Amino acid sequence: MANERGNVNVAVLGMGTVGQGVASLLLRQKDFWRERLGYELTLRRILEKYPDKTLDFDREGVPISADWRDVVDDPEVQIVVETMGGIEPAKTFILEALRRGKHVVTANKDLLALHGRELFAAASERGADLYFEASVAGAVPVLCALRQNLIAEPLTDVIGIVNGTTNYILTRMAAEGGEFGEILADAQKLGYAEFNPASDVEGIDAGRKAAILSMLSFNSQVTLDDVYVEGITGITREDIAFADQMGFAVKLLAVCREREGKIEARVHPALLPKGHPLAGVGDTFNAVLIKGESLGEVMLYGRGAGRFPTASAILGDVSEIARNIRFGCCGRLNQVFDRLKPVMPIDEIKTRFFLRLLLADRPGVLAQITKTLGKHEVSLDTVRQTDLKDGDAELVFITHIAREGDMRQALKEMGELEVTKEIITVLRVEGVA
Amino acid sequence: MANERGNVNVAVLGMGTVGQGVASLLLRQKDFWRERLGYELTLRRILEKYPDKTLDFDREGVPISADWRDVVDDPEVQIVVETMGGIEPAKTFILEALRRGKHVVTANKDLLALHGRELFAAASERGADLYFEASVAGAVPVLCALRQNLIAEPLTDVIGIVNGTTNYILTRMAAEGGEFGEILADAQKLGYAEFNPASDVEGIDAGRKAAILSMLSFNSQVTLDDVYVEGITGITREDIAFADQMGFAVKLLAVCREREGKIEARVHPALLPKGHPLAGVGDTFNAVLIKGESLGEVMLYGRGAGRFPTASAILGDVSEIARNIRFGCCGRLNQVFDRLKPVMPIDEIKTRFFLRLLLADRPGVLAQITKTLGKHEVSLDTVRQTDLKDGDAELVFITHIAREGDMRQALKEMGELEVTKEIITVLRVEGVA
Repeated sequence: MANERGNVNVAVLGMGTVGQGVASLLLRQKDFWRERLGYELTLRRILEKYPDKTLDFDREGVPISADWRDVVDDPEVQIVVETMGGIEPAKTFILEALRRGKHVVTANKDLLALHGRELFAAASERGADLYFEASVAGAVPVLCALRQNLIAEPLTDVIGIVNGTTNYILTRMAAEGGEFGEILADAQKLGYAEFNPASDVEGIDAGRKAAILSMLSFNSQVTLDDVYVEGITGITREDIAFADQMGFAVKLLAVCREREGKIEARVHPALLPKGHPLAGVGDTFNAVLIKGESLGEVMLYGRGAGRFPTASAILGDVSEIARNIRFGCCGRLNQVFDRLKPVMPIDEIKTRFFLRLLLADRPGVLAQITKTLGKHEVSLDTVRQTDLKDGDAELVFITHIAREGDMRQALKEMGELEVTKEIITVLRVEGVA
Repeated sequence: MANERGNVNVAVLGMGTVGQGVASLLLRQKDFWRERLGYELTLRRILEKYPDKTLDFDREGVPISADWRDVVDDPEVQIVVETMGGIEPAKTFILEALRRGKHVVTANKDLLALHGRELFAAASERGADLYFEASVAGAVPVLCALRQNLIAEPLTDVIGIVNGTTNYILTRMAAEGGEFGEILADAQKLGYAEFNPASDVEGIDAGRKAAILSMLSFNSQVTLDDVYVEGITGITREDIAFADQMGFAVKLLAVCREREGKIEARVHPALLPKGHPLAGVGDTFNAVLIKGESLGEVMLYGRGAGRFPTASAILGDVSEIARNIRFGCCGRLNQVFDRLKPVMPIDEIKTRFFLRLLLADRPGVLAQITKTLGKHEVSLDTVRQTDLKDGDAELVFITHIAREGDMRQALKEMGELEVTKEIITVLRVEGVA
């Protein structure tokens, strides 16, 4: 319940970039909330492993502690904001807070993508609120939409650009014709990529978000382990240039679909036609395209990361929970995700493919390739010869829709053909009917 | 309260296109809701002036009546969906339903933009829910975001393409180089424009949406009468062609801003740089760009009209209210909008301008124009000579940011100059720093 002055008391766990953003806004925006919401959101406690750490805001005497029990055992704390990241101790802190009847806001996609179901079940058991808007696409209110306004109809497709680092790299590769490695190094210098960029560039971060999006969109348990993940480290400037010439942008996509009760959840680079709403999403921006039978298509776009955009999403959650506390309806969005719709193995998904092959330049080669593909029910939509190198010809193909398992078989056989010098690139193509 | 079977009973008022969409989905999606929400949304009654009207779905014996009291006096009806449109009798029906403790979902922007405050106050008094997602941008969950996730920070700008008909016309004018009148006629044939298109093409429909967006975004009473409205009937293919050459798209924008406690609420055609997120929104699509200090910018995009997209937004509201009924927290989003922040008169707004002038082609003319503008503190950013006609020169200008009142004075004086043959076009330019 809100305390006697009608305030709602909040604790923030972890004084990293985002945690400091949340704490400083909690202190700075008091007047706005009093006017807008009719009550205050009060920063009551801070947890930080190094309590002597220099903060870049004045905490105005709010107690800071390295002992999490100081926070979860304070009966005045109603909402706990977890911005520490990682699995432990975040998981224990969240579960203990829920057990003590506190509500939790977290941006922790790592945790939700692995242990989401356990956390949601704990919240549900206690009738507590567990909100996590900032875990996917930062300030973009996509989870709010999926948990509230868009629950009224079956969704068929949720496709997103949900990792800002890789989108920044791909946008610059396209604009400058640069190679992956050099742009990544520059992105690291500029602070757009981490010192250890693996979880971004290898698609793991986007994979976590795909798990969360799939869970909410299709009301079924989906974890990171269920998501097929492929990163962008193999994308070259030539791939992007050829795609561009054929009218496509290359994006790292999180593709979540439900068809006849089966879920697709995959993250990989893909070609998108330039007219596609996601194709124009550049720089570090995130966007999620949602399709439903009645809805048509809806896209939500904005800043997916950064201190204040993330803090903004977290404070949206805090305000919503504060409203629920005042109306005595916490737990109203709880879902248990105890259904288990099957997640399709990657071999069973159907899509178009973009292939770059280096072939011997002699008569009948194309017929051999077509025949090999045809044997596995893959047919060609577009063929373009691009280059001749030492008597070999580079060809770029786009196929019609094919089953991935069939495509893999065909590629294996093509690789064994004497005329095939190299299978340079294989990418999926999305957004074409 | 939900009835003993846990169902929530819904009545639909008006069997127009949207009303039939809502009613048919209510009947068709029962199984989905039972599984997803844990209860049914049941179509209990239909109100239709002509109860013998042929419906394009099977109403499965649901009672249809021409007498509104059959609906509002039925104690089993918990949620009333109003899809009749217009001011009366919709207003009376909604108020009577609220008075009887029912919750209301409406898509009626005409009504909300004029009598919103009265309706919101009536809902608030009763602790009833009044939801209206479909009134702005159809299936795009923009009001859900503004009423929930984005309440935690002061918003500064909400700028939208919120009328599909005009966006369709402008998109085709740009693509085909056609004139307004001929494309409008074609849009009418294709069903994208009404037989009487005035409220769309003159900006009134967008003006209503600007009033609703301003009210929610800035928490203050704003009605259609407060919104400056200018339509697209004067836009020519030359305007669009010159704008295009200079790197701009022409869009009908709803611009809602708050600066230092004052509100801007205006609808007019405007030039937008082609890289602007709203510039690429084509066809009948709608989009709303929302800016806040922490948030950065967020854009929501999708189908703004049409039977099923609108029905989808309405059913999202119905599901949300059903959830509130079950958790006993109806009224949780109620706002009273009793604040009255001043809305700036159009003369006080500041923006850039795009001007097309026909001037005598002789030395010193440009100096005279510059001098007249300068007298009123308007300065030029770009000047381009485009054409010579019978000894006159057509020039296209883009100004720096100027106060609209000053610009109007300058235009008046320029019109009186002997060298000015014609002031062909004056349009505002948005989205340039």
